Parts: sequence; structure tokens; C-alpha cells
Amino acid sequence: MKDKEVWIEDQYGIDQGRSLEIKILKSIEKIKSDFQEIEILESKYFGKVLLIDGIIMLTEADEFCYHEMIAHIPLCVHPQAKKVLVIGGGDGGTVREILKHQEVKEIDVCEIDSAVIELSKKHLPNLANSFGDKRVKIYYQDGSKFIQEYKNEYDVIIVDSSDPIGPAEVLFKREFYEDMYLALKKEGIVVTQAESFFYNQEIIRSLFSFIKEIYPIAEYYYTMVPTYPSGVIGFTFCSKKYHPIKDFSLEKTLDLKNLKYYNPEIHYSSFVLPNFAQKLK
Amino acid sequence: MKDKEVWIEDQYGIDQGRSLEIKILKSIEKIKSDFQEIEILESKYFGKVLLIDGIIMLTEADEFCYHEMIAHIPLCVHPQAKKVLVIGGGDGGTVREILKHQEVKEIDVCEIDSAVIELSKKHLPNLANSFGDKRVKIYYQDGSKFIQEYKNEYDVIIVDSSDPIGPAEVLFKREFYEDMYLALKKEGIVVTQAESFFYNQEIIRSLFSFIKEIYPIAEYYYTMVPTYPSGVIGFTFCSKKYHPIKDFSLEKTLDLKNLKYYNPEIHYSSFVLPNFAQKLK
Repeated sequence: MKDKEVWIEDQYGIDQGRSLEIKILKSIEKIKSDFQEIEILESKYFGKVLLIDGIIMLTEADEFCYHEMIAHIPLCVHPQAKKVLVIGGGDGGTVREILKHQEVKEIDVCEIDSAVIELSKKHLPNLANSFGDKRVKIYYQDGSKFIQEYKNEYDVIIVDSSDPIGPAEVLFKREFYEDMYLALKKEGIVVTQAESFFYNQEIIRSLFSFIKEIYPIAEYYYTMVPTYPSGVIGFTFCSKKYHPIKDFSLEKTLDLKNLKYYNPEIHYSSFVLPNFAQKLK
Repeated sequence: MKDKEVWIEDQYGIDQGRSLEIKILKSIEKIKSDFQEIEILESKYFGKVLLIDGIIMLTEADEFCYHEMIAHIPLCVHPQAKKVLVIGGGDGGTVREILKHQEVKEIDVCEIDSAVIELSKKHLPNLANSFGDKRVKIYYQDGSKFIQEYKNEYDVIIVDSSDPIGPAEVLFKREFYEDMYLALKKEGIVVTQAESFFYNQEIIRSLFSFIKEIYPIAEYYYTMVPTYPSGVIGFTFCSKKYHPIKDFSLEKTLDLKNLKYYNPEIHYSSFVLPNFAQKLK
């Protein structure tokens, strides 16, 4: 039995009859921004926790599983990604991993809510210190509008979004994926956060119903994150030219430092899905 | 916010500051056996749930992820497993999967608690109907003692145990793995439930500290099960001769029917571990 006063419950799955709870020592800071409620908490076993509208965005203990996999998969496939766009990603973890690739010369970050970046800089330095790198430029804009202003601009676009409720809803629509196609260079790759094949099958089916029409290569891969619903979260891999397996470069993985999750074999195996999940794409 | 009256919390991780909760419609039957408290519940979204001492053993919605992987991995490596022992496995799910292999002629099941089998037969027919097959023989005994009476007897032993607290604690000890070595035929394979590489690292380290000394081949593989802690659970693969990858037989997978998780590519990828998990074995 738990002492209820010191636990938080992740709100995302409650309507679907499931909830992950973790034990909290204290709330460090809680604010209401123009877009959402953002809170940093200290947990007993998972380090600090970033909570947005009651949903766990990350914990310090397992964020590496997500951030390494959203960044290194596309960047070890694209042979020479010089300019990368991150949409969302206000905690800085994705940028931290992208910066490990020396060929990347410019990283634009488009985050709708400056408060996420401010709070992360203050309380999650291991992630948000990445924003201090001189290759990084931050835009505080709606990603779905930002993307419409660019054509043939980016080698890789990474959509590190929250769930399709609230401000991120538009990032799961066909128009957004069409606009990203235009914003990519002719050999570009898009990777987007695409939920769990256990709990969000309708979202994945919906995404693949149109991304297969837009991109010549449309695949799905996953990573394991204990503090996300079901312990599994996946990504779309949308590409104009490069295939995630056939064009994977082992060489590019050799220079990557301090990896706790990603390795060349994981690169391959993350695209291998259980039978029931293969049918979603 | 949840209506607390209709949720159960999995007790296993509560001391480590984490808990999965699922929404329950009603309790179907709850008994106190000689060994443990056993309950069958009807959940809102996961079908029926088997709970032992407050810990989720299985839900109808995702049990296939576990049972397919504990059974088909060893049986698609061993070229001709005729006699198989299951220790634990009182719900019948593992036996259901073993029965899909025509080469298996005898399945001994050693379950310490007859009440688990009785309740499963009554309420989980999709799993426990397997016990009615004429190849199956059930022994109600302590698996750690049962195994000491057999030498050179089994082609494959599958330990489908609960967590190493209560009656299953002895199944995580060196002596038990030594006794299983002796009970195996000279080309035999043991597979055992071996917890999560996220949450149970000390258990995995402890197991590998001695299984590597006992078995020439000692590997670790995993499956994803949303209603288990962290969403991931692993298995030891201990073998006298056959290697789980080099000796895997694609042909054996062709006859397997109604698989929702296991496939040949999953066979390979389930042995691929994130960097941090590789260090445990």
C-alpha cells in the first residue's frame, strides 16, 4: 500500500484504465505558461521529473532511452546531415544527442513554449545545457506554422513532441507531414515521436495512412522507456531517399560518445516489430 | 484523476517508488491457498487479470507477449525437443504455446500451488485448456525439489516463475540451476523468467554470476509486456550445446500457428540489448 500523498499519477492513460505512478519527494517548481501547466518534481528513484499537464515528459533516470533513439537513428542513416531542425524538444535532451554528431553544423529548435526551455535550463542542466552550444538557434513558434516558411532547407527534421492532445495535436496531421516534406532537402529524413504500439494503435494507423503516400520510405521503430505508458514508445521514420537499414552507416556510430542505449545492433533491432505491431503500418 | 475504488495497484514495485494501476470492473474470485493469495479480476481494458499476492501475473490482453517468447525461443533452437518440463506456469499459457510444437511428445508441469491451476481452469480457459491435452502431465510439487529427482531427462526446461519473493525465491538460486543442468539431456536448454533489465539489475547480475559458470552458453533475451513493471521482462537462455542465434531454425517457425508476437526477426532482435543492459550479463 502506498502513502498517496507523495505519489504522482501519469494522467495520459487514465481514461484507458491504466496509470503509472511514481513516488515523489517534492515539487521543485510549478508554473502555468501560456500553453500548459509545467512542473519539475524530485522523485525518489527516477531523479527529477518533467511533468506537462500531468503527463510525464521525462525522468532523469530513463530519458536517455528516448533521446538517444530519436536522434541517432536518423543521423546514422543520413550520410551528411549538416542542418537539423528539432520541433518541440524543449528539455534539450534531443539536442544534446544531435550535438554528438560532428557533421551537424546547424541545429534549429522550434519550441512553442519558452517556459519549457526556461525551466529545463534551470532544473535539468544535463539536458538543457545543450542549448548553450553555438550551433543551436532557438525559435519560439508553433512548429506547424514555422515549417511552412521553409523549403528545401533541412537534412533531418526531428519532431520531439508531446502526445496528440493540446498544443501538439496539429503535429499528428497530414498537412504537417506534407509541409515537412517540402522543408526537407531532396535526400532528407523526418523522424517523429509516434506513441506506443500497445496503447495507441489508432494514432499509428492514422499516421501511416498518409505518410506512406507522402514519403517513399515510411517505417516505424521503437525504444523502451519504463516511465512512458506501456514502457514502449515508437517513432515514424519518413525518408525521401535513405533506407533506415540498407543505408545505415556503421562508421557513423564509432564516434558517438557516452551512449547508454544506442548501438549498431539496436539500430537494426529497433525496426523489428512483434506481429501485431507490423499490421499497424 | 481516478476513482480509486475501482483500480488495483501492482504491489511489486511499490517499495521502489513505482506502481502500475489498472481499472477493475469487479473481483471474480479471491482465495487464500496454502502458499499465497490468488485473485481473478475483470478489468475494464485488459480482460481478466490474475493477481498473486497483489502482483499482476498476467492480463488476457498482453499475456501472449510473455508466453510466446518464453516457449518459442528455446523450442525453435532445440532441433528435436521431445520432452519438456515447465516449472511454475500454473495459468497454462506457456503449455498452450509449447503444444504448438508437434515434435514435443511429453510436457511435465511442476506447479507448487494446485489452486493456481484450478482457478485458471475455471476462469482463464484460453490459457488453461492446454492442461487437457494428453501430452501434459501435472505434478503439484516444489520445483526446486522435483528437479533433484531427475537426471538426463528433459530436452528443454522452462521456468515460468513469479518474482523472487515468496515460494519462487529458491528458483533464483545457484543450486537450482545446477540441478536443472543435471536434469537436462546432454543437448538440453533451460529458459527462465529473469525480470526487467531496467528495474531488477541486481537479480540479473546475480543470476549471470553463476549461470555462466554452469552452462557453456548463457544469454539473456527480453519481451515487452505493458502490464509488467517497466513494460519489459527478460529471460535467461542457458544451454549445453545449442546457441540461440547460430542454431536457430527458421524452418521450425513455419508451422507455428496464431502467433501475435513471435516471428523469426523477433527471435534475433530479442537478444539485442541496450548498452546498459549488456553489462549485466
